[in-house]
Amino acid sequence: MYVTGTGKTKYGITASSMQEMAYEAMQKALDDASMSIDEINAIYVSNFLGGPLKSQLHFNSVVSSLIPKSKIPIIRVETACASGGSAVYSALMSLSRFRNVMVLGIEKMSGLDSGDTAKSIAMAGDRELDQSEGLIFPASYALIAQQHMQRYGTSEDDLAKVSLKNHSNANLNPLAHFYSKKVDMDMIKKSPVVSSPLRLFDCSPISDGSAAVILTKKRRKERDIKIIASELATDCISLAERKELTTFSSARTAAANAYKSARILPKDIDIAQVHDCFTIAELVAMEDLGFSKKGRSKDLVRIGATELSGTLPINTDGGLKAGGHPIGATGVSQICELVTQLRSEAGARQVDKAKIGLAHNIGGVGGTASVHILHGGKR
Amino acid sequence: MYVTGTGKTKYGITASSMQEMAYEAMQKALDDASMSIDEINAIYVSNFLGGPLKSQLHFNSVVSSLIPKSKIPIIRVETACASGGSAVYSALMSLSRFRNVMVLGIEKMSGLDSGDTAKSIAMAGDRELDQSEGLIFPASYALIAQQHMQRYGTSEDDLAKVSLKNHSNANLNPLAHFYSKKVDMDMIKKSPVVSSPLRLFDCSPISDGSAAVILTKKRRKERDIKIIASELATDCISLAERKELTTFSSARTAAANAYKSARILPKDIDIAQVHDCFTIAELVAMEDLGFSKKGRSKDLVRIGATELSGTLPINTDGGLKAGGHPIGATGVSQICELVTQLRSEAGARQVDKAKIGLAHNIGGVGGTASVHILHGGKR
Repeated sequence: MYVTGTGKTKYGITASSMQEMAYEAMQKALDDASMSIDEINAIYVSNFLGGPLKSQLHFNSVVSSLIPKSKIPIIRVETACASGGSAVYSALMSLSRFRNVMVLGIEKMSGLDSGDTAKSIAMAGDRELDQSEGLIFPASYALIAQQHMQRYGTSEDDLAKVSLKNHSNANLNPLAHFYSKKVDMDMIKKSPVVSSPLRLFDCSPISDGSAAVILTKKRRKERDIKIIASELATDCISLAERKELTTFSSARTAAANAYKSARILPKDIDIAQVHDCFTIAELVAMEDLGFSKKGRSKDLVRIGATELSGTLPINTDGGLKAGGHPIGATGVSQICELVTQLRSEAGARQVDKAKIGLAHNIGGVGGTASVHILHGGKR
Repeated sequence: MYVTGTGKTKYGITASSMQEMAYEAMQKALDDASMSIDEINAIYVSNFLGGPLKSQLHFNSVVSSLIPKSKIPIIRVETACASGGSAVYSALMSLSRFRNVMVLGIEKMSGLDSGDTAKSIAMAGDRELDQSEGLIFPASYALIAQQHMQRYGTSEDDLAKVSLKNHSNANLNPLAHFYSKKVDMDMIKKSPVVSSPLRLFDCSPISDGSAAVILTKKRRKERDIKIIASELATDCISLAERKELTTFSSARTAAANAYKSARILPKDIDIAQVHDCFTIAELVAMEDLGFSKKGRSKDLVRIGATELSGTLPINTDGGLKAGGHPIGATGVSQICELVTQLRSEAGARQVDKAKIGLAHNIGGVGGTASVHILHGGKR
């Protein structure tokens, strides 16, 4: 199974409609693959908040409207912030039946009352146990950060370093939400507290954006990138039901299964796109993915291992934090960045000699996790 | 590919939560299959309105909470009223990878302000072209009915006959929303007009309910039912973009592909569950599925061909109209009824010598359509 085309809109706040963004991402992916829409056998659409925020469910049929002559199967998948990864996972399984399948991730989050937006995002958490107690996502991840700090000595400085790295990477990515935003350590550390210890610069933004990839059963071109593992796992939705806050067992399960199915080890990964909805989530991800022992992710951050020039560059496009987090698009966007890097087409942010890349996409506070591993070399 | 277990809650207005209904349907399906939850490799969840109505998205993770030790892949699928069919379609494809997969359909619609419910259901239609013009679903299907009547001479009496048949069938189905509700022709024809020519008794109700099926790659038991076709097609979302109102090209495409892949003809179908969200939709379905020529479905209704004792019984459980229409559960529920009939376990509503059954599930006004064909004999 291969990725033969990728397309993304500029992430950020835009006046574009969902339809316009979707069309642009789809067309860019088709252009990138030198493929016509008629060659696509099915489409999986990832969208999280179209219902609550835009009063638009049934978005698969909206996508069908964009290709009027076509009657192909189109299905919407929703697993909160992991919707993109779940759509890629579903689309890959559909290659048992189809030749070429597109995955379209899309979210329109701007232009609304911020209270409405916060309430809608909270729908990714348990209605009975979390939402009713005001446990919105910054608060959930703040609890995780507090516990990680107490137990392992992770510091606010470590979180700030993750933020600075991702903003630096975003500065090299013209499609990033915070491209051309100059950020320094002082700004990050003096930014307002959102939910202690998390500050504004520890949180990913409210973004609009769309991303698309085209997956194929067989290799079509030299620059196609092979997918060597696709795994998904789930966990209970509420933090209140978890025994452990500083690790997501869904992500550990998906990662273990992915390494097994790809027959590689964590040390074989050259680059990774991980779900840094908050800076602490990037640290937890590094541990869940086996890049460091439990509690030791901060050591890698302190020596700069996850920077572009490091031994394991993470979130080379700026991640969710600075690249942007149009929720339904995020898991698809991660695949786009891995493909771009593994093809050596990442320009100013290109990582040296990257061959194997991993994408890690989380829903809620670990209720869903997907892990995909891509191989850019010939196998 | 086989159905090895089915489970349904009592449809209607209930005090049960989504979690309680989901648990009941899942457990019933497991019991029916004599299977333990540990044997299930993945779950596809179909739910339409959990976000807008219950502030609960990420329902796949809620389902994961119901089986705390498990980390299996669970994914939510949403394609409006066709969500159930789309989940079955997706789950069947996942059998390329898994041995046993569950599909869980669920909707909780009661207990809310009816204006909120109507607004949320309208999210299945185009926000720009339909919703903003007040083109809610009873109005859309009323336009279809008007055109069908003008062009083909279909009458209000024909619609009433469909309603009466489905209510009669529901009276033989203890799990139906309108089980034990006595309905006669006079009640139907004197019921208030909702959107001319559609009266109250032409419209499916607001129901709560859940349905589950367990799908397997291989036959496990004598009473397993084989799935011989699974097809899905889409169309543009808005009626305003359609050239033709009295037929759904998505349904025609899915049906044609299903007959081809099952290598049968419409005349080979012994029983069918069709998407009668409104009575007119049952007539359109009969034509789209090739049971009659265009405009001639009324002839079959007039001679009673679609009654339980007829040559082609349709909606033997009462259909959406009288069986109930908990939206996310509907497409799954249709498979439950076909399996029950093809196993000869339908009790008072059992159809004689039914061997091949078809399920037809529609999203919106035909923006999505799925068709599944099941074979109860040995092949």
